[in-house]
Amino acid sequence: MSILHDSAVRGFASDNYSGIHPEVLQAIADANGGHQVAYGEDQYTERLQEVFQQHFGEGVTAFPVFNGTGANVVGLQAMLPRWGAVISASTAHINVDEGGAPERVGGIKLLTVPTDDGKLTPELVDREAWGWGDEHRAQPLVVSITQSTELGTLYTAEEIRALADHAHERGMKLHVDGARLSNAAAALDVPLRAFTTDVGVDVLSFGGTKNGAMLGEAVVVLNPSAADGLLFGRKLNMQLASKMRFVSAQLIALLEGDLWLRNARHSNAMAARLRSSVEQGLAEGSIQGVSFSQPTQANGVFAVLPDGVADRLRESFRFYDWDAARNEVRWMCSFDTQESDVDAFVAALSALTKR
Amino acid sequence: MSILHDSAVRGFASDNYSGIHPEVLQAIADANGGHQVAYGEDQYTERLQEVFQQHFGEGVTAFPVFNGTGANVVGLQAMLPRWGAVISASTAHINVDEGGAPERVGGIKLLTVPTDDGKLTPELVDREAWGWGDEHRAQPLVVSITQSTELGTLYTAEEIRALADHAHERGMKLHVDGARLSNAAAALDVPLRAFTTDVGVDVLSFGGTKNGAMLGEAVVVLNPSAADGLLFGRKLNMQLASKMRFVSAQLIALLEGDLWLRNARHSNAMAARLRSSVEQGLAEGSIQGVSFSQPTQANGVFAVLPDGVADRLRESFRFYDWDAARNEVRWMCSFDTQESDVDAFVAALSALTKR
Amino acid sequence: MSILHDSAVRGFASDNYSGIHPEVLQAIADANGGHQVAYGEDQYTERLQEVFQQHFGEGVTAFPVFNGTGANVVGLQAMLPRWGAVISASTAHINVDEGGAPERVGGIKLLTVPTDDGKLTPELVDREAWGWGDEHRAQPLVVSITQSTELGTLYTAEEIRALADHAHERGMKLHVDGARLSNAAAALDVPLRAFTTDVGVDVLSFGGTKNGAMLGEAVVVLNPSAADGLLFGRKLNMQLASKMRFVSAQLIALLEGDLWLRNARHSNAMAARLRSSVEQGLAEGSIQGVSFSQPTQANGVFAVLPDGVADRLRESFRFYDWDAARNEVRWMCSFDTQESDVDAFVAALSALTKR
Amino acid sequence: MSILHDSAVRGFASDNYSGIHPEVLQAIADANGGHQVAYGEDQYTERLQEVFQQHFGEGVTAFPVFNGTGANVVGLQAMLPRWGAVISASTAHINVDEGGAPERVGGIKLLTVPTDDGKLTPELVDREAWGWGDEHRAQPLVVSITQSTELGTLYTAEEIRALADHAHERGMKLHVDGARLSNAAAALDVPLRAFTTDVGVDVLSFGGTKNGAMLGEAVVVLNPSAADGLLFGRKLNMQLASKMRFVSAQLIALLEGDLWLRNARHSNAMAARLRSSVEQGLAEGSIQGVSFSQPTQANGVFAVLPDGVADRLRESFRFYDWDAARNEVRWMCSFDTQESDVDAFVAALSALTKR
Repeated sequence: MSILHDSAVRGFASDNYSGIHPEVLQAIADANGGHQVAYGEDQYTERLQEVFQQHFGEGVTAFPVFNGTGANVVGLQAMLPRWGAVISASTAHINVDEGGAPERVGGIKLLTVPTDDGKLTPELVDREAWGWGDEHRAQPLVVSITQSTELGTLYTAEEIRALADHAHERGMKLHVDGARLSNAAAALDVPLRAFTTDVGVDVLSFGGTKNGAMLGEAVVVLNPSAADGLLFGRKLNMQLASKMRFVSAQLIALLEGDLWLRNARHSNAMAARLRSSVEQGLAEGSIQGVSFSQPTQANGVFAVLPDGVADRLRESFRFYDWDAARNEVRWMCSFDTQESDVDAFVAALSALTKR
Repeated sequence: MSILHDSAVRGFASDNYSGIHPEVLQAIADANGGHQVAYGEDQYTERLQEVFQQHFGEGVTAFPVFNGTGANVVGLQAMLPRWGAVISASTAHINVDEGGAPERVGGIKLLTVPTDDGKLTPELVDREAWGWGDEHRAQPLVVSITQSTELGTLYTAEEIRALADHAHERGMKLHVDGARLSNAAAALDVPLRAFTTDVGVDVLSFGGTKNGAMLGEAVVVLNPSAADGLLFGRKLNMQLASKMRFVSAQLIALLEGDLWLRNARHSNAMAARLRSSVEQGLAEGSIQGVSFSQPTQANGVFAVLPDGVADRLRESFRFYDWDAARNEVRWMCSFDTQESDVDAFVAALSALTKR
Repeated sequence: MSILHDSAVRGFASDNYSGIHPEVLQAIADANGGHQVAYGEDQYTERLQEVFQQHFGEGVTAFPVFNGTGANVVGLQAMLPRWGAVISASTAHINVDEGGAPERVGGIKLLTVPTDDGKLTPELVDREAWGWGDEHRAQPLVVSITQSTELGTLYTAEEIRALADHAHERGMKLHVDGARLSNAAAALDVPLRAFTTDVGVDVLSFGGTKNGAMLGEAVVVLNPSAADGLLFGRKLNMQLASKMRFVSAQLIALLEGDLWLRNARHSNAMAARLRSSVEQGLAEGSIQGVSFSQPTQANGVFAVLPDGVADRLRESFRFYDWDAARNEVRWMCSFDTQESDVDAFVAALSALTKR
Repeated sequence: MSILHDSAVRGFASDNYSGIHPEVLQAIADANGGHQVAYGEDQYTERLQEVFQQHFGEGVTAFPVFNGTGANVVGLQAMLPRWGAVISASTAHINVDEGGAPERVGGIKLLTVPTDDGKLTPELVDREAWGWGDEHRAQPLVVSITQSTELGTLYTAEEIRALADHAHERGMKLHVDGARLSNAAAALDVPLRAFTTDVGVDVLSFGGTKNGAMLGEAVVVLNPSAADGLLFGRKLNMQLASKMRFVSAQLIALLEGDLWLRNARHSNAMAARLRSSVEQGLAEGSIQGVSFSQPTQANGVFAVLPDGVADRLRESFRFYDWDAARNEVRWMCSFDTQESDVDAFVAALSALTKR
């Protein structure tokens, strides 16, 4: 096969525009050769359980799946009876970016709450946490949060504990969409279990793809009594890989050593560099008219640009509008973002905004 | 990551117990580096369209997905209104091996017909092809066949043409589950389009995984008017890869040159070697009490063994029972099956059956 | 409103072509007036529980629903996890007459078995009762039978007990589609519980519509541990009546006294009269070329007619083809079928077949 | 059957706590007797088409169903592809009172917008009317409004026309949940078509139950090109009555003459009497501390009561809390509400609030 793309081009569109970290690719190669039992009875998926247990505690089980939407729908469905509903922030990926899969495939009603920063609180949960026993109301039985959030913000371990306690006291479970869980751990500078297992999270979507994998996530059951029928649910929801060893090997490559943390720290650092460089430019006047709409706590930067700047900036660097109506854009950094990428980007922004 | 498995071990359990063909792995590596637009707007997925068009004709469109169940459900759903049903052989993968995903996720009723050899005929189709307009009956609007079949048998191009004509005359469409389409082309020794596009197949699941890919199939729309909303359907059915370049690159690696054909010819040849060796052993008396339950037309061999032989043979080589009640077993060959594997297997069978 | 129809016309098409028994209509009128709590907290639905308990035993619970498809899907879904499948005869109403609702709405895979007479046996169940624990196979967890069957045949209490025992021993539950359960009780001449609760049936669809109600069925949970979430399932499956008192009142009218039994005995007797009259005609030569394809054990007669007779007979009396390819027809009797209807029908048949 | 309830008791809980208007009950009796083709090919359902056409215009088609949730889900699903979403007010019945049926059974994602008074406007619609073509977003293709709303408010014909135009210009369709459409027509004092067909509504749920029927709604297709497969959709969603003549007869009884209007005017008038009596009491000081949270434009009154009053008032008259947190209650009037009921209720309120 010919190489069709320019491997020197990088942008700030998403942490899934990047490719595969070389160590992950090597792990795929290492798992190759010979025959292994299909559908998860291979030695890599077996080893993966140990790796997840080291990070999240004894008794946790990991079910590798293909993608984040699959992880969320399979995990949430396993936590819920057919009449269950999920309380989430209105900005949650499950609500805005999954094409209706939670509803259509999962049969799950979402009860969404507007937030300023993508983060639920017990008070916000309570806006939808009512009506148990009333058959007319889809029953709120799971609270789902995203860590780090779709808005680049972070929950502290204490905030998650408060949500878990609040949910559990009301007979609900706590689910975490952890497509960027590694970024959160890197930012909080604590072990993965410190803000998941240890504070009462029940089920987790653990993301590999956005942190250097080719493709691979896992539904991780932290509380064994919180999910039912996952083996069947993964299959019937079409998320069961036959050559699963190659999905598991990727996750092992990330989690067995510290690759997951190195990658996450790097992408967080690049976002911090981007933010501070722009802030410095604003202070010095080399950048003008730019403001920030969210704190930069992980690997995403949310900014509001002067009219017309976004499109011109995009001529050189790809990124997405977040809320075009108010010129809000999202800049994501990835494990392979280079300091020089950030610096060139800031320079371009300066050239476009400095009068 | 440590290498956890013995890469010298191979068996006859399934063509998805094997790993990744080196050329496919190289293609993944070649597509790596730099940023590419996620979710299918990358250069590899664009190139993939040309590759599929070369094989299947102008105007065809390929939608890469994760796995075979996903390809089948996404493809069939795109061919059907909500009230549609699919006529298939009762042995079809969609009926027996997809955990109810066609029904549960696709909302599709299957109207199944028993067959001797896994192959539908117009006469067999007619057992369920009736009741159009009657709202009490899920409407039979698609016929789905598997090529090569789950029983290792083959449709000729003429047989598929007869089914396509029969279906079209009744307002139905023809779907092909082509998880092993390459094996069929190799066995028929004709181009892929000769028994698909050219004879009236409407939509196809094209399989890469069982022919040397790590993971990757495609829903291929041969008749553009036969499927609707595939872009949305792939997403909402959770089959949309973010880093799709790596799925597309694998399929390009298979289809751009003749790797697809080399691999398929090889696995077919190994099955033929296995069959003929056993037949020779039977003729010579070195193997006793073994018979065959299906013709060997692609890469699978279906045999009936004397009592107790299967379990003892499995101590050395992994394979599956097909119908344990009558001692029927399935032996699958893969792209990486070696002549020495076959010969050792036949020798073991001889040692167990020769009195 | 004007009366638009000729209330003197009756045929043999179906027991749902008839109207409302006068005692049922009176019960609707009696339940009218004033306000009653909607959605089932009314006094009629409360009383209905007692009525069902008298017939089926203490501890049973009845959930009134709108129609038979609703009763079946709501009941079966409450018996199954999301990955469950139902073993039924291929002629079962759930398989052939519900527009795919069990699959599409219930998310239930049906594992169907061909039968001669619409009746499952333990041996027939075993054709599909396998594969537990294998995530690739929708899990067979319920056996569903119809009593009396769609082919007018009957299970004895002992036959049902054998099926229940067989199912329970394998971790499956037994569901009965009792759209015509009253006809079965009348034919067997035993109490309703003798062939349901007492022999191990877990959940039942009890039919009122075909036995003189305007509209109304009930999901009846005989084994409290066999169904989960019915209150929610009925609502989310859109089978919850707001003015439920009028559905419950109809079922009370049928079941509080012996109206259910009088109606069922009458329709059975009319079918027996029809069958014996035709048999007598055949014996005497006044009817020629007619044969029967099923025993007449409840209120349906299945016959095979000489070529062309069905259409000419339908000029006077409405009825359905059952298998047009072999001239098989179905004649159903209802609670309001008159002896004179039967006699006129037999006379017409005689006029058309006597040479 | 014994009469179990006190037919003199009425309250203000809901317009579905009332029973059957005597003329509707008579229509059921008139349609009784003899045989009529089941599942909608009867003479009453045929006549019903003419009746709906007289009210809504030539070319409209009515599909009788069992209940309002069924009408909404069947109608909306027929308007949408599998990837479609519906924009509604967050207070819409489809969002808060249907147990998740739109999502779970219909496969429909709801995009909900908070409102003050239960009414959408083009500006509110635009909060969710975006993202067409983006496969990650469930596609907003229908706007659904309720007339009169769940909050007792009304859209003018012009407001609905503006919404229809706005929707159509963006490739969306307009659906109306008309569970209380008759109340709206009575309040607006215009023909039913004046604010539906004539202003661009595409599909309608027409409610009979809350306006004097025993049970019966209809999906009414005003724009024939706006809905697909309703015949099949009604069946597979389990909303097809076998003895449909009795559902159709009820709707004929309401709509053939002016019963629909008399009933609606009466319930509206009772709500107006209730509101004005309380207002008068407040002005005179005989009632204290009560305020209104919504205008009273149809048959519902929304009030805020002093602490503790609601529960004491409920000792005599049943009604529901609307938002218990702020002491907001809902008082609904029905076709059978008497002036004396209102007066007694106001007197009781006075007794509880006058200091």
